[in-house]
Amino acid sequence: MRKHVVIVGGGFGGLKAAKALADLPVTITVVDRENHHLFQPLLYQVATAGLAPGSIAVPIRGALARQENVRVILGEATEVDRESRTLHLKDGGELAYDYLIVACGAKTNYFGNATWGDHAFGLKDIRDAIAVREKILLAFEAAEREEDAERRRRLLTFVVIGGGPTGVEMAGAISELGRQVLARDYRQITPDDIRVLLVERGPRVLSAFDEDLRLSAARQLDELGVELHLRTQVVDVDAQGVTLRPVEGEPTDEAIAASVVVWAAGVQPVSFAARLGVTLDSSGRIVVDESCATLADPNIFAIGDVAAFTPEGEGAALPGLAPVAIQQGSHVARVIQSDLRRRARPAFRYVDKGIMATIGRSRAVVQGSFKLDGFFAWIAWGLIHVLYLIGYRNRFIVMFNWFWSYVTFKRGARLITARSRRR
Amino acid sequence: MRKHVVIVGGGFGGLKAAKALADLPVTITVVDRENHHLFQPLLYQVATAGLAPGSIAVPIRGALARQENVRVILGEATEVDRESRTLHLKDGGELAYDYLIVACGAKTNYFGNATWGDHAFGLKDIRDAIAVREKILLAFEAAEREEDAERRRRLLTFVVIGGGPTGVEMAGAISELGRQVLARDYRQITPDDIRVLLVERGPRVLSAFDEDLRLSAARQLDELGVELHLRTQVVDVDAQGVTLRPVEGEPTDEAIAASVVVWAAGVQPVSFAARLGVTLDSSGRIVVDESCATLADPNIFAIGDVAAFTPEGEGAALPGLAPVAIQQGSHVARVIQSDLRRRARPAFRYVDKGIMATIGRSRAVVQGSFKLDGFFAWIAWGLIHVLYLIGYRNRFIVMFNWFWSYVTFKRGARLITARSRRR
Repeated sequence: MRKHVVIVGGGFGGLKAAKALADLPVTITVVDRENHHLFQPLLYQVATAGLAPGSIAVPIRGALARQENVRVILGEATEVDRESRTLHLKDGGELAYDYLIVACGAKTNYFGNATWGDHAFGLKDIRDAIAVREKILLAFEAAEREEDAERRRRLLTFVVIGGGPTGVEMAGAISELGRQVLARDYRQITPDDIRVLLVERGPRVLSAFDEDLRLSAARQLDELGVELHLRTQVVDVDAQGVTLRPVEGEPTDEAIAASVVVWAAGVQPVSFAARLGVTLDSSGRIVVDESCATLADPNIFAIGDVAAFTPEGEGAALPGLAPVAIQQGSHVARVIQSDLRRRARPAFRYVDKGIMATIGRSRAVVQGSFKLDGFFAWIAWGLIHVLYLIGYRNRFIVMFNWFWSYVTFKRGARLITARSRRR
Repeated sequence: MRKHVVIVGGGFGGLKAAKALADLPVTITVVDRENHHLFQPLLYQVATAGLAPGSIAVPIRGALARQENVRVILGEATEVDRESRTLHLKDGGELAYDYLIVACGAKTNYFGNATWGDHAFGLKDIRDAIAVREKILLAFEAAEREEDAERRRRLLTFVVIGGGPTGVEMAGAISELGRQVLARDYRQITPDDIRVLLVERGPRVLSAFDEDLRLSAARQLDELGVELHLRTQVVDVDAQGVTLRPVEGEPTDEAIAASVVVWAAGVQPVSFAARLGVTLDSSGRIVVDESCATLADPNIFAIGDVAAFTPEGEGAALPGLAPVAIQQGSHVARVIQSDLRRRARPAFRYVDKGIMATIGRSRAVVQGSFKLDGFFAWIAWGLIHVLYLIGYRNRFIVMFNWFWSYVTFKRGARLITARSRRR
């Protein structure tokens, strides 16, 4: 009887694990509540009308169609009965497993301010991205009809919260979309009407990067017209905008009226993680041992954003990055192979190939075995992202769209479609 | 003082009218409740996951960006005060006009059975197409998890109502998507599980075509595995499916359980037409004279699907086709030019360049100065549709996607994204 491996989540980690198990004598079931694998690093380009959703998402089923030992199920994992090794699904289905790989990722973290989520958009799935895109485009439409200059400026104020890669990319892309693309198509709007604020609690953006690249990123953001608000915390978010307060010194609150607020300040594991009954770290991630297995149950693995893997001798767990998830996906397949051959489980070792962030057209920072900023960093960023996209069709379409936007300063995906029907 | 021309609707007719007025000493305002011009003839390909929404839609604003005498407004026209020549918008705005061009198109007509619309999807805008796409893909997902063969077959039953070009194209495309694309990606589903019914009240499909092409279309549908139900009327549509009844003979009702029902049986003018206070025909279209002006008011024109233009000596009004709307858009610009020069208004003459419908991969019928069916008709259909798409980018992307699907039998736009959030 072949062992049954159930994988919860078809993201970078889960998909890689499924593929790495292709040649082992196991049957695999991938469960995901979406029908598609999403290339999250490019999600901000969907949110800023640069790419169509379908260009950065592939059906999980399609990505695994040729692999005969895997089946794919659209469903949501709710509970695990570790005693009987059974995974329960939301609509009543259940799956018996020999190995369970938890790779269900993270969701936006509003740090306890649940109502902020009604006004500040996260950026974790395609619905998020389409909602942001629509809100931005509708703000421009309203501004075009607004006669009052002050109100127009308020409509064209955009706030991005969080100075990590997602926040930096989002702020740069909104500024570019507004100033270089949209301002040309509207009769009443000039680039100077548009205001983009990037708010960061800490003293710098892109804190994972070295200082020279951080300074370069800040300079590149400035060139794009993004206002940096460092050492600044958000104390309220509502339908009118945000309220900011300096982290140090006088607590003088400043209310910023804004039409769109994007929340890129943090993520947390999806709630399924807490229902496994295994050890979690302080941020709710599943603590795993050196083989990527949970501490309570060697047959349950956790990989990617939902897992807290702390390399030996280091104090912090690995960050939530695609390469971490991908390498852990491969590793878990090797662990299962070792089990089947009754050998000792190998230990996971993360190979850090570097980090990168893009700021806009011809603007990026890259830090690995070498450092780059500006145009060549942007080219490197583009090549690597295209390479990791799944499917030749998507790679080609994304490259064509980038080339087209670069040459024409136009964006192909400026659709407003998801609003409720108004018949 | 320049005359102000207000155009309601940025479809084929409205967009063409705006462009044709480019060199006249007028200012133009285009009002549309969507931000995009939609290439409706290819909407069924969005509904069947062949094309991304953005490939067949362009922002109206973008399409007119270089034309200096036009501005574009996102808004919904509600009332017209013909006395003061004022158009009122839904949110309280108003526009004074010298000429009003009504080009607001048609919506799905359920012929008085309002509740049918809850279960049978129309196919008029991008929201419709995404809803159909999602429903079809979810039916396959549910079927993959269904153990019972009978229930699985029921989940994979699709009904298309209406045997005109949209219905024929839709039925062919669903059958092809199911049998040639999706069946390969699912483990439990075989092509024989899939059932596609095309229901038509009359004795034939594509009644606007000559008999040889109608027979060819019926044969091509049969080759694709579409079940033709001619001389059959729909007597009920509910969440379970449809109830059919023969038009003649015994009234024996047959209930067909189906997961997706597409309504392509008819359209009617959008409700704004009735609020103009001008003469309408029996189907609610605005009756226009030989210059395309309304009978009650020479400063108000109606063109495209919303207008009933009956050529001299003929009994029936022109059909709701893109070429009719486009030619009428040009014509109205000529009429306004004649008015400005104080000359007599020219009469509109429709130049019929032929009609075409596609049935599936390598399958189509074309009727014009020559007739074609099969592969060459399909090539002709593809070339003409690409030619009429707006923007080089869209033409290229659509051609690339068709080529890719033709070679690989894959579909690029198989996303389920619009479902409500389930967090």
